[in-house]
Amino acid sequence: MHTADLPVPTPQDVLSAAQRLQGAVHRTPVLRSGMADRLLGAQVYFKCESLQRTGSFKFRGAYNALSLLSAEQRERGVLAFSAGNHAQAIALAGRLHDAPTLVVMPEDAAASKMAATRQYGAQVVTYNRHTEDREAISRQLARSRGMALVPPAEHPHVIAGQGTAALELLQDVPRLDHLFVPVGGGALLAGSLLAAQALGSACEVHGVEPEAANDAQQSLRAGAIVRIDQPRTIADGVQANALGPLTFELIRRHAEGIVTASDLQLLHALRFLAERMKIVVEPSGALAFAGAQHGGVDIRGKHVGILISGGNVDLPRYARFLAD
Amino acid sequence: MHTADLPVPTPQDVLSAAQRLQGAVHRTPVLRSGMADRLLGAQVYFKCESLQRTGSFKFRGAYNALSLLSAEQRERGVLAFSAGNHAQAIALAGRLHDAPTLVVMPEDAAASKMAATRQYGAQVVTYNRHTEDREAISRQLARSRGMALVPPAEHPHVIAGQGTAALELLQDVPRLDHLFVPVGGGALLAGSLLAAQALGSACEVHGVEPEAANDAQQSLRAGAIVRIDQPRTIADGVQANALGPLTFELIRRHAEGIVTASDLQLLHALRFLAERMKIVVEPSGALAFAGAQHGGVDIRGKHVGILISGGNVDLPRYARFLAD
Repeated sequence: MHTADLPVPTPQDVLSAAQRLQGAVHRTPVLRSGMADRLLGAQVYFKCESLQRTGSFKFRGAYNALSLLSAEQRERGVLAFSAGNHAQAIALAGRLHDAPTLVVMPEDAAASKMAATRQYGAQVVTYNRHTEDREAISRQLARSRGMALVPPAEHPHVIAGQGTAALELLQDVPRLDHLFVPVGGGALLAGSLLAAQALGSACEVHGVEPEAANDAQQSLRAGAIVRIDQPRTIADGVQANALGPLTFELIRRHAEGIVTASDLQLLHALRFLAERMKIVVEPSGALAFAGAQHGGVDIRGKHVGILISGGNVDLPRYARFLAD
Repeated sequence: MHTADLPVPTPQDVLSAAQRLQGAVHRTPVLRSGMADRLLGAQVYFKCESLQRTGSFKFRGAYNALSLLSAEQRERGVLAFSAGNHAQAIALAGRLHDAPTLVVMPEDAAASKMAATRQYGAQVVTYNRHTEDREAISRQLARSRGMALVPPAEHPHVIAGQGTAALELLQDVPRLDHLFVPVGGGALLAGSLLAAQALGSACEVHGVEPEAANDAQQSLRAGAIVRIDQPRTIADGVQANALGPLTFELIRRHAEGIVTASDLQLLHALRFLAERMKIVVEPSGALAFAGAQHGGVDIRGKHVGILISGGNVDLPRYARFLAD
């Protein structure tokens, strides 16, 4: 899989992905909360990808990408590099496609995520984050084993797959005025923009980043991809250093804008989601809610969608977030 | 509202309640988990009343009971005694019915539950659990103010309302072989039994109690209501001392049996639901899952329903459960 050979995904690609994913992914619930409505002064709809298989939306893109490999390629296997959600997604998608999977993870990745990745059936290879280059290791392994490399974001089939979450939400709640979507590698936002187009929706789609990891916001302002090395934020799920050319282009063309939330705002959002909505989310999973609340977009009286991206967080760490 | 004057609820009452509740209650999602399926060796369906309005199934019974009061009675108001979930349920049901509500709560009730009850619009009166009798206080207040007393379990309209959760689950998953339901005051189990009858379902319905609060299990064995004073269990949601005549009669006649789970098993179930299913449940909310896992019923290869009753737990306490 070489991104350079592959075309920019289209709205139709999201619709096709949705067909392909039917029965394999959960159609995740859309939750409401009277408290959230009052807090935001709006009608709020939470699309809970934390309740997706493997605990995040990443399973959609991984499954779609694996579906579109040749049978021969699936037999040779699939390789991914990821510290978390993409790893588990590739591992399960591989098992369901009878494709061997190999995931390159930092040796200090959360033990629970590494264990889950193995439980789903992947072989895990570790590397030292500080001294080794994961992309170089991954490319070398992929070449030597003849495996297909599926990147976490910068790939049209991944982007189209991620777009199916917003597609379902916009089908379930057609009158949405605003949709807030977290941005890491940017595939979820890019796919959501295509989904809105596919349905001819006038919904304004906003990206949300942590204040300290606002590379996509800076990129839009600069008109070129800006990279932030090692951003410091509790939102470990969106610590990608930068957008890629594909996601940048789609976001630049179609996104309403990108807003930010501080780590403290994230923490409060995470706690609200536990206390009032009774859902476990990882810090980046609370990003869209925090952005809708604090990002300065006027949403009063509107119908607002919040994309909860995932719920994979180590219990001891999560307990500290709740107790602090 | 005097229980003695009111008839035993019927399967038809659950169907009527479901009609009455449409649009007012959430049709809560039914979640699946590959991990849970493997753990139990069965196909497992989680009916998540933790995601119900006010955070527990109790809202169903409260709303149904208030709907069936006369307009005049609603105007005079409604009174309830509860340390937790029933309090919030009555408060919100009252607000939606334009009925003033007064809730008698122990002065050491969880601060968050008391705050939520007030936020939903109820007046809260506190008493000392160790020196005062809440039922006497409640009856006296109800008489002096002309308010209707809606008990947490021992009432046909409450029982019929609670049955609508299992009704939805059995409609969504008609081929269920077993259903596990937590037992406190017994209304949820009694209502679930009526729901299964209403649909002509052959599903076997099992109650689940904490080992240390197994008064219903003992009552079935003794053939008469057994009371356990001040049971010691982390499952504070099911600390009712005993079944009432109505719930006892329905459970004795129709339940497959009652199994138990230890507090440690409860704690593990609660953690699994957080880590794997990404849902926040209170200890009694994890009871049905723990009972299915450890209660000795042979469910291998079967389709199994788990009723997650609620998710109202103080965050600091919940954090301790996760961190221990």
